[in-house]
Amino acid sequence: MNPADPTIAPGLRSWVESANAADSHFPIQNLPYGVFKPSADAAPRVGVAIGDQILDLARLEQTGLLRTPRPLFAAASLNAFMAAGRDTWRSVRGQVSTLLAADTATLRDDAAARAQALVPQAGATLLLPVEIPGYTDFYSSKEHATNVGALFRDPKNALLPNWLEIPIGYNGRASSVVVSGTPVRRPNGQIKLPNQERPVFSPCLKLDFELETGFFVGVPNGMAEPVSSDEAESHIFGMVLLNDWSARDIQAWEYVPLGPFNAKGFATTISPWVVTMDALAPFRTLQPRQEPEPLAYLRHDGQHAFDIQLEVSLRPQGRDHASPIARTNFKHMYWTMAQQLAHHTVSGCNTRVGDLMGSGTISGPDAGSYGSLLELTVNGKNPVDIGGATRAFIEDGDEVILTGWCQGDGYRVGFGSCAGTILPALPHQ
Amino acid sequence: MNPADPTIAPGLRSWVESANAADSHFPIQNLPYGVFKPSADAAPRVGVAIGDQILDLARLEQTGLLRTPRPLFAAASLNAFMAAGRDTWRSVRGQVSTLLAADTATLRDDAAARAQALVPQAGATLLLPVEIPGYTDFYSSKEHATNVGALFRDPKNALLPNWLEIPIGYNGRASSVVVSGTPVRRPNGQIKLPNQERPVFSPCLKLDFELETGFFVGVPNGMAEPVSSDEAESHIFGMVLLNDWSARDIQAWEYVPLGPFNAKGFATTISPWVVTMDALAPFRTLQPRQEPEPLAYLRHDGQHAFDIQLEVSLRPQGRDHASPIARTNFKHMYWTMAQQLAHHTVSGCNTRVGDLMGSGTISGPDAGSYGSLLELTVNGKNPVDIGGATRAFIEDGDEVILTGWCQGDGYRVGFGSCAGTILPALPHQ
Repeated sequence: MNPADPTIAPGLRSWVESANAADSHFPIQNLPYGVFKPSADAAPRVGVAIGDQILDLARLEQTGLLRTPRPLFAAASLNAFMAAGRDTWRSVRGQVSTLLAADTATLRDDAAARAQALVPQAGATLLLPVEIPGYTDFYSSKEHATNVGALFRDPKNALLPNWLEIPIGYNGRASSVVVSGTPVRRPNGQIKLPNQERPVFSPCLKLDFELETGFFVGVPNGMAEPVSSDEAESHIFGMVLLNDWSARDIQAWEYVPLGPFNAKGFATTISPWVVTMDALAPFRTLQPRQEPEPLAYLRHDGQHAFDIQLEVSLRPQGRDHASPIARTNFKHMYWTMAQQLAHHTVSGCNTRVGDLMGSGTISGPDAGSYGSLLELTVNGKNPVDIGGATRAFIEDGDEVILTGWCQGDGYRVGFGSCAGTILPALPHQ
Repeated sequence: MNPADPTIAPGLRSWVESANAADSHFPIQNLPYGVFKPSADAAPRVGVAIGDQILDLARLEQTGLLRTPRPLFAAASLNAFMAAGRDTWRSVRGQVSTLLAADTATLRDDAAARAQALVPQAGATLLLPVEIPGYTDFYSSKEHATNVGALFRDPKNALLPNWLEIPIGYNGRASSVVVSGTPVRRPNGQIKLPNQERPVFSPCLKLDFELETGFFVGVPNGMAEPVSSDEAESHIFGMVLLNDWSARDIQAWEYVPLGPFNAKGFATTISPWVVTMDALAPFRTLQPRQEPEPLAYLRHDGQHAFDIQLEVSLRPQGRDHASPIARTNFKHMYWTMAQQLAHHTVSGCNTRVGDLMGSGTISGPDAGSYGSLLELTVNGKNPVDIGGATRAFIEDGDEVILTGWCQGDGYRVGFGSCAGTILPALPHQ
């Protein structure tokens, strides 16, 4: 937020050499938080990604190299750290930045301490970073809402009348949010086939991904204590990539009138590293112009969009490489995260530390920039090419990989990847 | 479940005399669990309602009069007890029943131990009994779905085509579930007035209650481990009354296409005492006939409805008594709790200990049996009489009180009450 923040200086370098590569997602300007186990039988703890390594904050806290108001990092989630508040977030970020800076000798020149504090990412297990009390998913891409409206409802009135007034959102299923790498079982469910009078119970035939980002509430609000659009960003701890897996055929049959349920509740995948709002500050940009001007509680001055490049790729079973199928940018989103949180709380709803809010599918203006197969293939009619094969929807064994980063001058503030492989549906009657 | 269960014998009496009154909600056959503080500065603990008293289970556990695998009751929620599993639920119920039975001398004849173990309900503070990781609300009354469909959509096709196939449900907002007695602030929000082109930001003008019950998941299921309709009830710990406060005008404008959000997220009130499935077993009855016969995963043999009489009353500010406005019965519900849980998990969704599942508004076949003012007043057109005044919707200062009980032979297994008073909306721009 503060342009003078020394932790985001473009020229900053780390003594962890892999962090200085121009295409590393985890340079010293990033410092995202995650939860990991260094080995299979080790206790979970909080770490920071730096290059191809993880800095073990529990270890630094224990040895006194990191000072916090109370122990926060020998924990299975970021929640205690998030609950400690913004001053602690900034203090820890500052200390970690200093410890990792090229000109700080403390760890750099102490081989034993360094060996204890750094864990190669390749050998570590990354866990769900946050205990998530509530998961809300928004629907804030105008292009996505228009595309879906045209496919599911009426092409002539694709955008519903409330869409330009409300950052539409709904409550998702928090229990089934999983971390990148967790296999996802194809859901069974009720499907209404066009040529049959009654629904059938079947494995989903139109399994899809949704390219999203999500943010975590770090500073909660109480009941009947709404958060204004202007102050909303100060409640946000950081962002992740999010794949809102969607069973399109189950969704089409179930969603009227109370919204998607089983079509979304089987799994939602997030990336393991939470990129903080401080790390994202240099990549602020102006949100799209909103016409009509929103109601007063949704107005905010300044730049509230973020320039985050996003890619989706798909790797069929047995292949060693993934094929890109979509590219877009988070900055296209019509409603900002600040507006989403302000709307969520304006009627009195309270939030809790660790609440996850999904952006909604991020689709850009061009055909190759759509954030779901539903849109990319026009509901399966025009399968996408993945080099020697095509996909109308996701097949068993396919791995879907989201990635994203902010492009700085010679460095990237990245999110790593958010991936999941589809397992065959359970046998059913 | 077991008809030979001695804890539900109709002739059973307690040495707590108030429990033997024919209209007590808390006879020895009930033994519902709650969380309470005996005094303002005491620690929360688990108790059982008996007559007008509370049996302090933490105290009994401490003094060795109650045996459990590990300490479960010196806790701010029932979650640890629920997580201990059905064998422990039954063991504790059996022990408590024995301790409170008229012919058991242990506490009856020990004035000092009795004084420590019993707390008058009148002086205690009842807290939210469960830490609720997820809240799902169903929509399982055919009469309610028909009435709402006629008002919000098309009277000629009031029941949507999926309704007879799917126990329709959606994810609610778990963070704003509060215990009976918590004041509820009238929400502000976007309202679309018929004579205006754009929505206005306003206090809700059509504030409503919804008469529901809810059940708590005690035995969770994992991802991709669906629960069958036949085994679903064994996952349920118990039931409460539930008021799903609803801002009808906010709802009408926001709910297409992803369902209700701010119209419901400001508060949901539940009763403090969780009535167990064992206590409800004698009141099983046959559910309504389902036509068409549901898909295989929704079928179950036997009786899965429960005969629970329900009443709603309203007390305007300053009055000393409430006026009844609706009477109905839980047994009218088309979809059973077992079918709700089976449907919720059939696509792979996992549940957690303490998940709350609302029944949906419980409306019966007659005009006086509707579970919301929306239905009772035909969207405000025909206000209900409350003796010297009328109500189209809820006004500031009104207290809405739900109550419910199962009528046994000379005793009632009751839920107590689920009440909330409406505070004026926050001032807004």
